[in-house]
Amino acid sequence: MSQDALVVFTPSGRRGRFPLGTPVLQAARALGVDIDSVCGGRGLCGRCQVVVAEGDFPKHGVHSCQEHLSEHSETEHAWEKENGSLKSGRRLSCSTQVLGDVVIDVPPESQVHRQIVRKRAEVLDLELDPIVRLHYVEVQEPDLHFPASDLRRLKDALDFDWRLTGLEADIRVIQELQGALRRGEWKVTVAVYDNARIVAVWPGFQEKVYGMAVDVGSTTIAAHLCDLQTGKVVASAGRMNPQIRFGEDLMSRVSYVMMNPGGDTEMTAVVREALNELTLDLAEEAGVGVTEIVEAVFVANPIMHHLLFGINPVELGGAPFALATDEPVAGLWATEIDLRIHPNARIYALPCIAGHVGADTAGVILSETPYYNEEVTLLVDVGTNAEIVLGNRLRLLAASSPTGPAFEGAQISCGQRAAPGAIERVRIDPKTLEPRFKVIGCELWSDEPGFAEETASTGITGICGSGIIEVIAEMYLSGVINQDGLINGSLEQSSPRIQANGRTFAYTLVSAGDRILQITQNDVRAIQLAKAALYAGVRLLMDKLGVDRVDRIGLAGAFGSHIDVTYAMILGLIPDCPLERVGSIGNAAGTGARIALLSRSRRAEIEDAVRKVEKIETAVEPSFQQYFVDAMAIPHKHDPFPNLRETVTLPEPVISEDSGARTRGRRMRSAR
Amino acid sequence: MSQDALVVFTPSGRRGRFPLGTPVLQAARALGVDIDSVCGGRGLCGRCQVVVAEGDFPKHGVHSCQEHLSEHSETEHAWEKENGSLKSGRRLSCSTQVLGDVVIDVPPESQVHRQIVRKRAEVLDLELDPIVRLHYVEVQEPDLHFPASDLRRLKDALDFDWRLTGLEADIRVIQELQGALRRGEWKVTVAVYDNARIVAVWPGFQEKVYGMAVDVGSTTIAAHLCDLQTGKVVASAGRMNPQIRFGEDLMSRVSYVMMNPGGDTEMTAVVREALNELTLDLAEEAGVGVTEIVEAVFVANPIMHHLLFGINPVELGGAPFALATDEPVAGLWATEIDLRIHPNARIYALPCIAGHVGADTAGVILSETPYYNEEVTLLVDVGTNAEIVLGNRLRLLAASSPTGPAFEGAQISCGQRAAPGAIERVRIDPKTLEPRFKVIGCELWSDEPGFAEETASTGITGICGSGIIEVIAEMYLSGVINQDGLINGSLEQSSPRIQANGRTFAYTLVSAGDRILQITQNDVRAIQLAKAALYAGVRLLMDKLGVDRVDRIGLAGAFGSHIDVTYAMILGLIPDCPLERVGSIGNAAGTGARIALLSRSRRAEIEDAVRKVEKIETAVEPSFQQYFVDAMAIPHKHDPFPNLRETVTLPEPVISEDSGARTRGRRMRSAR
Repeated sequence: MSQDALVVFTPSGRRGRFPLGTPVLQAARALGVDIDSVCGGRGLCGRCQVVVAEGDFPKHGVHSCQEHLSEHSETEHAWEKENGSLKSGRRLSCSTQVLGDVVIDVPPESQVHRQIVRKRAEVLDLELDPIVRLHYVEVQEPDLHFPASDLRRLKDALDFDWRLTGLEADIRVIQELQGALRRGEWKVTVAVYDNARIVAVWPGFQEKVYGMAVDVGSTTIAAHLCDLQTGKVVASAGRMNPQIRFGEDLMSRVSYVMMNPGGDTEMTAVVREALNELTLDLAEEAGVGVTEIVEAVFVANPIMHHLLFGINPVELGGAPFALATDEPVAGLWATEIDLRIHPNARIYALPCIAGHVGADTAGVILSETPYYNEEVTLLVDVGTNAEIVLGNRLRLLAASSPTGPAFEGAQISCGQRAAPGAIERVRIDPKTLEPRFKVIGCELWSDEPGFAEETASTGITGICGSGIIEVIAEMYLSGVINQDGLINGSLEQSSPRIQANGRTFAYTLVSAGDRILQITQNDVRAIQLAKAALYAGVRLLMDKLGVDRVDRIGLAGAFGSHIDVTYAMILGLIPDCPLERVGSIGNAAGTGARIALLSRSRRAEIEDAVRKVEKIETAVEPSFQQYFVDAMAIPHKHDPFPNLRETVTLPEPVISEDSGARTRGRRMRSAR
Repeated sequence: MSQDALVVFTPSGRRGRFPLGTPVLQAARALGVDIDSVCGGRGLCGRCQVVVAEGDFPKHGVHSCQEHLSEHSETEHAWEKENGSLKSGRRLSCSTQVLGDVVIDVPPESQVHRQIVRKRAEVLDLELDPIVRLHYVEVQEPDLHFPASDLRRLKDALDFDWRLTGLEADIRVIQELQGALRRGEWKVTVAVYDNARIVAVWPGFQEKVYGMAVDVGSTTIAAHLCDLQTGKVVASAGRMNPQIRFGEDLMSRVSYVMMNPGGDTEMTAVVREALNELTLDLAEEAGVGVTEIVEAVFVANPIMHHLLFGINPVELGGAPFALATDEPVAGLWATEIDLRIHPNARIYALPCIAGHVGADTAGVILSETPYYNEEVTLLVDVGTNAEIVLGNRLRLLAASSPTGPAFEGAQISCGQRAAPGAIERVRIDPKTLEPRFKVIGCELWSDEPGFAEETASTGITGICGSGIIEVIAEMYLSGVINQDGLINGSLEQSSPRIQANGRTFAYTLVSAGDRILQITQNDVRAIQLAKAALYAGVRLLMDKLGVDRVDRIGLAGAFGSHIDVTYAMILGLIPDCPLERVGSIGNAAGTGARIALLSRSRRAEIEDAVRKVEKIETAVEPSFQQYFVDAMAIPHKHDPFPNLRETVTLPEPVISEDSGARTRGRRMRSAR
């Protein structure tokens, strides 16, 4: 009778013959089967769980059953009882020996390179491959006869157990190593960065390490804490960016530095302090120690990026808008940006793309991976500027368009940030011109019973970005404004909502007691300028790419989440595209940071993609100006919305007296 | 007529044809001829000076003369006048064009990999190849049409001008880059570490950078500042190690840490502060700014090494004497050890070899390169312990022997450090037993006229290491002590110098007024123990290496410089060796640090050598104890000094009554 047994692993299909008594984990390793383990087969980590497939497998010539494996070991009983985490029918491959032919299934959660399937369907799956990994080792004790240093014996153990060769060690690891080895009685867990450097050491068995993915926005800083072993988000937190006190928007912060030497240092200090507070929030929520956080990955726009890393952002405030660096910031110690996580934790920031197109846009690209597809994807991230990415697997273009902050509610007479009390949805009756609306924090429309009571606490304080888009579009649809955006003053007679406002007119959206919220001619103009800038940028990139349509549109960020796409199309913010192919992509920048945190290969992928992105500077493109002027009208001539017309009945535009020949000419051309 | 000319470079012999008008530097580069340049051929650095060889060179088929080169350029005239540093007959190869066949000589000082010939003959020459190099570049200005970052354009320039590809940059370089580029009007000089990382940037042309080589001893810290372009020492300085206040010798410092938790941090802080003071001394002496110092290389014994790098040294205070690391400390930022030189300056420490054999010994090995030679070299560095290295190109062994501090004057009743007033030379008249001696700070012997006057200011304060060796040897040669080291009390009658001292006797060296300096029986024993430990260690290594003689002996450090080798042999400190092959090798540890500072390849060489050194722990070698006991006698049995007998007439040893059978047995054996 044979002293060997055939072992087949699924799903890999790898197979081999092994002497009876061989541990399953050892067989798996010999065959290069992907089974996770932190403790190196010592029954400490419980990661190497497998399942025996019972039955006959003619393809493999195997009859497989539980009896072809050794009895449950004490370690396994302990795991079943005490940890409760060895599921029924599962075995720990490190303490189970092969006694006959078997088919062993490695479930996804036991694979090192397991797939993470995220809940949000539009986001791609991810192969977990963090750059920092834990390795448990038992280190030889020092011996007078073999005077090797603590570090050398540690490295020998890592080489022997984990085939990690040529590792280097951070000085702080060397400083802590003696104590860790002796406290852990020569058993330690190390964190290894990029299979190259030992960056942390803990006495005994350390089960978990964590990483942070952070999106440093000019208004808010949002962070996720992820378990690097599972890829799961264990905590999420956000804070206001305290730099706001130096200037509401990006340009005012750059101005602050120009006017106040040393202002960059101040702003660097406050954002780093906010990051530390955010880190404490995350650690507390997840119940982990800050020193268990071994990496932090950042996305940010160029000015936030430069301030975070202590680089003066003034060059980004004026032409030629030269970045200090367009490379990823990689391998920096957390201490170098004063971040109080593990002192040797590494910092990674996705690369900035150009002076106005930051690491946040790189995050959007990484999250959406337009470079994988044939279809032409348009990605838009609207903030103070609109970052625009267009392309497919052959070419990818990026630009920033100077929309200004109107889409965020700034520069609008009654505009405000999205916050409770802000109007976010608007409908205008085309006959009576009476509005109804919804405010953030209340589910009811303003004409529904109970609205007044429910909004009593917050009041109706202003209008946010999505509300502005809707009110302007509804004003157009109801004939309050014409294609040129001019408020039709002749309606003053028929509706109390239209009122003179100096030499122009305004539309009154809310008039309740002292509180009057009006949409003025200037407000309409501000939105026209913003949307023309956005559209012109998109149009320019389409020209550069040589396409006259896009296959898919993704709208990133808070603006993208709240906006009603139909209205965006009515106003002509974005080019024509089937409605079902247009959608919010959420905080894609932050998602990109998380992907980079969890996957070394995806990090390399985005670095490569960013190098290849063609950077377009709208300011030096003559056609941009023309597109901009042309796109002021609603809807603009380049985009007759053929498919939109099927869903919304557009009223015949009212042509005012003063719109003149230019408007008529445009209509003639768009009639082609 | 030909439009090309033949250009031959000497001493390399490289040759090629080039179009008339080609700059000489360009021709040299095309041929791979080694010509130095920091400014990349812009006439700024004056390093690329060459000489035209005049005459006919039949071997090369060339008639060479000044007329075959372009007229002196304005740049050259400026260099001749203003800088005065373009020597007569020399040309700047960057601003001289080839107009006909020429033979061009590249003098040694214009070669990148030039040899440095040092003044001290016993030290090997060195090929200058520092790990940090300066490169001057003119960087393209930023341009809206090509939105590349400052860093990218800098890297492009370094790639184009210097073929440096794939460089990375320190974050602090990125922080300073914008300012440097703009202040330097797009001309900057960068310091590149190991052809891999940009570690510093200066606006415009930076001509010089410097490096420090530091020997951190337990008593003194000695440092040299070197010009990394020429390899020359531009300043030298020394300071006491302030850790002395925590304990005179190494073991008492370790004890301090054991007794005082946090004591290691205190000692780390004070030695780093002393290094900063030393740095200021060096910078002031040389007239350079501390931020022009871009690297610091350290040697130190293991305990000093660990304390410098913030590693607790307690493990080195007891068996098994495990080092935290036996690897070189490389690439660390100066800021990580609080050293205030250029903040991105790199720190390098030679590797420690074993728990008692430090980076200082690695420095000795690098300085003496026993691994190059067939001959068996013995290197001895005497301090509190004696570090011993033995071997040749085939094998190299290292050990530390517990000599204790007697050789440094400690544990001797009238012993002291080498300082003015200390007795350093002694002769004893074998007939009268009267001594004469010299003290440090006075050129006269004690029996010469004027001695009393010249020593009046310092007095005669004690006896230092070299004086102790001599007095014990002279006591033996004059019969005051016998082979076993016993003071012959029977001489009390014939000489007032011999006096009872409790149950034993003492020899009075100085008796002037209140000042009495005596060599007691305990003093003799202390030296016997020390010299036995040293010899036993050497003997053990000879056994391990399988040799019974050594070809050369190098004595390192202050002890090696002051000791009279003849007396060391009389006492039996070192094994038999032709006297002319025994000598001081000066501060070889510090020389090793300087070599590592100036040569990347030599740095790799010592790292490799240290890995291969066989570390011998005397404490676990049974034969060490036997050698130790046997070596107590003077001269010990293993070394009958055949060649020494020719130079010194040894008196017949006086055998005292109590020396017993063991001594007789030894004499019999040594008579073989």
